[in-house]
Amino acid sequence: MKQMIGRASIRLEKGVYIRSSASIVGKKEGEGPLGPLFDMVGEDDLFGCSTWEEAESTLQKDAVSLALGKAGLKPEEISFLFAGDLLGQSIATSFGISSFGIPMFGVYGACSTCGEALSLGAMAISGGHAERIVCVTSSHFASAEKEFRFPLEYGSQRPLSAHWTVTGSGAFVLDKERTEEARAGISGITVGKIVDYGLKDSLNMGACMAPAAASTIQQHFQDFGTAPEEYDRIITGDLGRVGKTVLLDLLKEKGYDLESRHMDCGIEIYDPDTQDPHAGGSGCGCSAVTLSAYILKQLEEKNWKKVLFLPTGALLSKTSHNEGKSVPGIAHALVIEGLR
Amino acid sequence: MKQMIGRASIRLEKGVYIRSSASIVGKKEGEGPLGPLFDMVGEDDLFGCSTWEEAESTLQKDAVSLALGKAGLKPEEISFLFAGDLLGQSIATSFGISSFGIPMFGVYGACSTCGEALSLGAMAISGGHAERIVCVTSSHFASAEKEFRFPLEYGSQRPLSAHWTVTGSGAFVLDKERTEEARAGISGITVGKIVDYGLKDSLNMGACMAPAAASTIQQHFQDFGTAPEEYDRIITGDLGRVGKTVLLDLLKEKGYDLESRHMDCGIEIYDPDTQDPHAGGSGCGCSAVTLSAYILKQLEEKNWKKVLFLPTGALLSKTSHNEGKSVPGIAHALVIEGLR
Repeated sequence: MKQMIGRASIRLEKGVYIRSSASIVGKKEGEGPLGPLFDMVGEDDLFGCSTWEEAESTLQKDAVSLALGKAGLKPEEISFLFAGDLLGQSIATSFGISSFGIPMFGVYGACSTCGEALSLGAMAISGGHAERIVCVTSSHFASAEKEFRFPLEYGSQRPLSAHWTVTGSGAFVLDKERTEEARAGISGITVGKIVDYGLKDSLNMGACMAPAAASTIQQHFQDFGTAPEEYDRIITGDLGRVGKTVLLDLLKEKGYDLESRHMDCGIEIYDPDTQDPHAGGSGCGCSAVTLSAYILKQLEEKNWKKVLFLPTGALLSKTSHNEGKSVPGIAHALVIEGLR
Repeated sequence: MKQMIGRASIRLEKGVYIRSSASIVGKKEGEGPLGPLFDMVGEDDLFGCSTWEEAESTLQKDAVSLALGKAGLKPEEISFLFAGDLLGQSIATSFGISSFGIPMFGVYGACSTCGEALSLGAMAISGGHAERIVCVTSSHFASAEKEFRFPLEYGSQRPLSAHWTVTGSGAFVLDKERTEEARAGISGITVGKIVDYGLKDSLNMGACMAPAAASTIQQHFQDFGTAPEEYDRIITGDLGRVGKTVLLDLLKEKGYDLESRHMDCGIEIYDPDTQDPHAGGSGCGCSAVTLSAYILKQLEEKNWKKVLFLPTGALLSKTSHNEGKSVPGIAHALVIEGLR
C-alpha cells in the first residue's frame, strides 16, 4: 500500500485516469495559437455577468459542466471536488461550483493550483477514498488585475517581464477506472515546497517562480531516479520568457539540460508578435486550459508518450507586496502518460 | 482498500493518530476560560513582528516548531504539510512555514480550514501516501479585521451577532503509527459541501455557517449510520451564540436533538461576561487551538471517548461582500477518538 518514494514523491502504482476534461477561455486566448483547440471561447470576457468575479465563477461552473457532460456523469457520481482560483478567499470557486452540491476541498497554490488539485485528486483516488474526482481551477485577466495590481481604467504601463493573466478555466474528471474515453493517465506526483530567493518584483513573476520549478524538477528526478530524457516534454505552468531562461540556467548548474524538451504553457498560449502578452500568460487557468486543450491532445495523438507537467505559483498578495515582502514560489509536478 | 462510505464520508479502517499538537494564542485568548491550557500565550499580539500579517506567520511557525518538538521530530521526517489561513492568497501560511522546507499543500476553507487540513492529512496517511503529516492553521484578530472589515483605528461599533477573530495557531502532527505519546485517533471523515441560504450579513457569520454545519452533521449520521448519542460531544468550530441556536433548530427539524451534546469552540474560548466577544470567537485558529488545548485533553483524560469535530467556514471576501453576494458556508467533520 505504500506509495511514497524519495523525499517528496508518490508513485501511483495502479494509475489514475483523466477520464474527460474541458477548457473555456476568453476572447484573447481564443485568438491565440491554441485558440482552435479550446472547447469554448467567450465573445465577451464578462461571460454575461455583471462583475469580473462572477464571470470567473461562470467559467468554473461551465468548465465543470462540460467536463461532466463529456464523461456522461452527473454531479452525484463525483466523490469530491478539488477547486481553487487566485482571488482573495477563493471567491471565484465559492460562487462557481456550489450549485453542483459535490463535497469539496478548496485549495490554494497561486498559479500552481491546477497541479495541486490534480495531485490531491489523484491521491484521493489511489488511496481508496474516492471513485471519481473533479479538479477545476480558473483565472481571469480583469479580476486578477483588480486583485493584485491596478484598476484597468488607469491604463498602467507594464514592464516586459510582466505576465498577462489568462482568462480561462480548465476542469478534469479523474477516475480510478480506465474508461474507453480516458484521455491520459497520471502515474506520479512530486509535491513542491515553498522556495524563496528573496525576489520582490511582482511584475517579474517568472523569475520569482523559476527557483521553485527548478527545485521540484530536481527533486522529481532524484525521487524517481529518472532524467530529462525520460520525458517528451517537461512543461511548466507560466514561467514565461524570463522565467524560462532562469529555469534552464538553474537546472544547467545542477547538471540537467532541459533546453530541447522544456515547454511553458504561458509562452504557448499567446502569440508574442501580435498579442503583446509581454513575458507570457499566467494564472491558475493558464496551465489548466493548456493541459486540457493541447497537452492531452498531443498524448492522445501519440506525438508525445509521457510528460512532466508542473504548474508554477507565485505566492504573493497585494498586502504582502505593499509590506515589502518577497514573492516565494511553489510548483507541483505530475507525470502524465498517453494511453494508446 | 476502499474506504468510502455513503455520499461524502471516509472510514479510516486502520486509524490515523494525532501524535502531538501545539497551540499558541494571543493575550485575550490567554485571559479566557481556556487560557491556562494553551501551550503559549503572547504578551503582545504583534509577537515581536512589525506587521499583523508577520505576527500571524510567526504564530504558524512557532506552532509547527512546538508540535514537532513535542513529537521529537525534525522537519525532514514529515512527508507533507497541509496549511492555511484566512488572509487573501493565504500569506500568513506562505511566509510562516516556508523555512521548514516541507513539501506542502495550501488549503482554503475559511474558518473550516483546520477540518479540511486534518481531513486531507489523514487521507494522505491512510492512503499510503505519507508517513507523517503536519497540519497547521491560524488566524489573527487584527489581520482579519484589516482583511475583511474596518481599520482598527476607526473603532467601529460591532453588532452583537459579530464574532471576535481568535488570535492563535494550532498545529498537529498526524502519524500512521500509534506512538506512545499519541493524543487521539482519527477514525472517520465527512467532507462538507458549500451550502448557501442566501444570507448576506457578514457580521452574522454564525447564521451564515449554521446551515453548512447542519448539512455535514446530517450527512455524517446518514453515511456512518450513527446518531448523536454515539458522540460525547458534537463540536462546531465557530458558530457562536447565534449560529448555535440556528444549528440546533435546523437539526431538530430533521429529527436530531443535539441540545445536550453540542459544543462550539467559539463559545468556549472567551468569557461572555468579562471579555465582550459578542457572538463568540471565530477564525481558522479558533477550532485549531481549542482542539489542541481542550478537546484532545478531554479525550486523554477519558472525560470523553469520542467526538465529532467540525470546523465551520464562512466563504466571503471583502470583494464578494461589496458586490452584494451572499455568505455561503462549509464544514468538514472528523471523528476523533480517545486512545486510553
